Amino acid sequence: MKTLIKDVALYKDHVITEHQNIEVTDSVITGFPTSPQAGDYDEVLEGRSMLALPGFVNTHTHIAMTVFRSYADDMQLMDWLEKKIWPAEDKLDSDVVYAQTMLGIAEMIRCGTTSFADMYFFMDDVARAVEASGIRAALSRGLTGVTPNAQQALQENKEFYKTWHGKADGRITVMFGPHAPYTCPPDYIRQVVEAAGELGAEVHTHLCETKGEVDSIVKQYGKSPIALMDELGLFDCGCLAAHCVWVDDADMDIMVKKGVRVAHNPGSNLKLASGIAPVQDMLKKGIVVGLGTDGASSNNNLDIMEEMHLAAFIHKAHTLDPLVVPAESAVNMMTEAGAACLGYTDIGKLETGYKADITLVDREGLHWYPKNDSMSLLAYSANSFDVDTVMVNGKVLLKGKEFTTLDIEKIKAEAERTKEKLFSAL
Amino acid sequence: MKTLIKDVALYKDHVITEHQNIEVTDSVITGFPTSPQAGDYDEVLEGRSMLALPGFVNTHTHIAMTVFRSYADDMQLMDWLEKKIWPAEDKLDSDVVYAQTMLGIAEMIRCGTTSFADMYFFMDDVARAVEASGIRAALSRGLTGVTPNAQQALQENKEFYKTWHGKADGRITVMFGPHAPYTCPPDYIRQVVEAAGELGAEVHTHLCETKGEVDSIVKQYGKSPIALMDELGLFDCGCLAAHCVWVDDADMDIMVKKGVRVAHNPGSNLKLASGIAPVQDMLKKGIVVGLGTDGASSNNNLDIMEEMHLAAFIHKAHTLDPLVVPAESAVNMMTEAGAACLGYTDIGKLETGYKADITLVDREGLHWYPKNDSMSLLAYSANSFDVDTVMVNGKVLLKGKEFTTLDIEKIKAEAERTKEKLFSAL
Repeated sequence: MKTLIKDVALYKDHVITEHQNIEVTDSVITGFPTSPQAGDYDEVLEGRSMLALPGFVNTHTHIAMTVFRSYADDMQLMDWLEKKIWPAEDKLDSDVVYAQTMLGIAEMIRCGTTSFADMYFFMDDVARAVEASGIRAALSRGLTGVTPNAQQALQENKEFYKTWHGKADGRITVMFGPHAPYTCPPDYIRQVVEAAGELGAEVHTHLCETKGEVDSIVKQYGKSPIALMDELGLFDCGCLAAHCVWVDDADMDIMVKKGVRVAHNPGSNLKLASGIAPVQDMLKKGIVVGLGTDGASSNNNLDIMEEMHLAAFIHKAHTLDPLVVPAESAVNMMTEAGAACLGYTDIGKLETGYKADITLVDREGLHWYPKNDSMSLLAYSANSFDVDTVMVNGKVLLKGKEFTTLDIEKIKAEAERTKEKLFSAL
Repeated sequence: MKTLIKDVALYKDHVITEHQNIEVTDSVITGFPTSPQAGDYDEVLEGRSMLALPGFVNTHTHIAMTVFRSYADDMQLMDWLEKKIWPAEDKLDSDVVYAQTMLGIAEMIRCGTTSFADMYFFMDDVARAVEASGIRAALSRGLTGVTPNAQQALQENKEFYKTWHGKADGRITVMFGPHAPYTCPPDYIRQVVEAAGELGAEVHTHLCETKGEVDSIVKQYGKSPIALMDELGLFDCGCLAAHCVWVDDADMDIMVKKGVRVAHNPGSNLKLASGIAPVQDMLKKGIVVGLGTDGASSNNNLDIMEEMHLAAFIHKAHTLDPLVVPAESAVNMMTEAGAACLGYTDIGKLETGYKADITLVDREGLHWYPKNDSMSLLAYSANSFDVDTVMVNGKVLLKGKEFTTLDIEKIKAEAERTKEKLFSAL
């Protein structure tokens, strides 16, 4: 199967060049022909007026939490968790998680996302939804050491790795998901590190999301969460750390040394009043920073272009420096750096030999006029409804802003049915 | 002409009620019939799945600056102004301003905006575009006292008032536009106050946008810009003040006392690294705060729903309090408070006797599922591409996401032609 994306503006090597062509053979980018013949291809996608980018990467979410989108907002964190989220999560089942995951995946594809990192429960159902939908994902079972099912959860993550890692034409990778230092005591982290090490798996965790959490770890252990996790060997697994809002210079130096990749979730950090991560310092030190939406309950959408826009905006005001996180940095976080966060080595760039995860953005909206700088327009003016075409692993999932494979009305109905079921059980 | 909006979710008295009907007679809302007969109406708009809101208000922009959208970004403010914006603004003409204003108006209508406050040059051309497009606006001629044309500009603002105030079926109101304390010395402000007072006009200005500006005024006059403007009588005209990022308690007390209305521009304040306005304190004190996009050169779009989303987000993180600016406050800023900012007394609510400025938001996007709380979904998950129908003064300008009166391809072509003309003259 050979596909040509014809006469498109190409984002490559961090610059945009007009009137290029992209050749895809099966699941891989195989070249950028200068004079392609339409007859040589099984499918030709017209790229005129479009901008081709590496598929967007959502580096941190809890996908099935779509069920809690706008279910309870404008509350204090502990009230929200204790009165609303935890009692409802207790009633989750396989049926609810599958339906809500399909909803979340569809929303992400609509927004140009081609891969995501997830941490939640009922992960077999999440993996089934990833397999069925055609998206790519790095999945982990959320693990907490302080709950009665700590050992069972760890066992599930191991089994989940063995069953799903590398499956769905290689679209699924499995990580271990130790939730956070405040829910995973040192001995449990050591067990996770050992289990991940035995399988060669990487880890996905939350670190330094709130000030209170950092203060409490420092009080308990006499060191920062970053220093504690480093000491316990978590970073030696290869680590994707969500949030990192409250990290200092010494923490960041450890992160650089150990290659910790950061999932920056500006929307969630703003809405939950967690704070604003020192992203400009991380970038300066060379830390890999991607973008995440977090769960829909704390965002409340899964729109990664909105996160890019926020990342390009908020650090300027927070540091009172208009030069931090320029347009190209924000675009890079959503694409190449995001893919690196998930541990991919052949995804995140439009280059020969890379997997064909490609997002085409339509530049005909009024907010793309007049035609000045496309990189700036993408970072500061565009929105996710400009996404026209999404290809994952060489397969077109969205074209002309319409889904080509998913039954959206059914997905919405199932999301509604399972939500009703869940909430009526409360 | 009688129009029925049928079976719609109605935002009224700050709550949303499903399955309501809205009756519009000519330019005015004339009731909410419980059992309307389709035969009694000239036009019936199907409202099923939609949410009806008072038309959105953009309380601060420089509309023709669309020509500078993504023309020069990621620069220091003074570099940007001196090297890029001012030399280009010097070449603006009537043709460029009209075409770029039409582009900006079309973009705003597409985003659900039914009225806006503008401050710029070539205001006759802006007024012509408002008249032709069907949108509503409060227009002011930008006035600076430190430039050679200070007196001429003031004279133009007076003439502009006499020519256009109350025109275009009452859709145009005219204000005076003293730019800012640092560009308008006290004597010039006194002249503006006198001129506005003679005509009974209100004023639209910039106040306390950057810390540097406040420090410089305090150094020069021994008082804050707010105290200085109060002393000069500017607030006695009725004042819409853009930004107010760097105001303290004493300033806010003056603003309350004098009924100063604030145009909060979160996107511009973030991107230009101006800072984050103490909106939560303003709201607590009872100051009327609306939302503005500012010009497209510092935003870079004219999407007021994005500003609502930012307003609901950034103050939570800035104050580390998740309860500030809840969903309903953000929606109110975009609607009722926005209309009050522009000095309207019969716009900004869906109530009998109010002008029929109505925006219908489609709730069928994936990010509106599952169907939990609509107010929260609107503030935290929706985006401007959900806007389906826009009515201004009883006339439908957008329906099914398509423009009903404007020739969009021509508007885009004209924006492109005039941009090329402007930049080729540099």
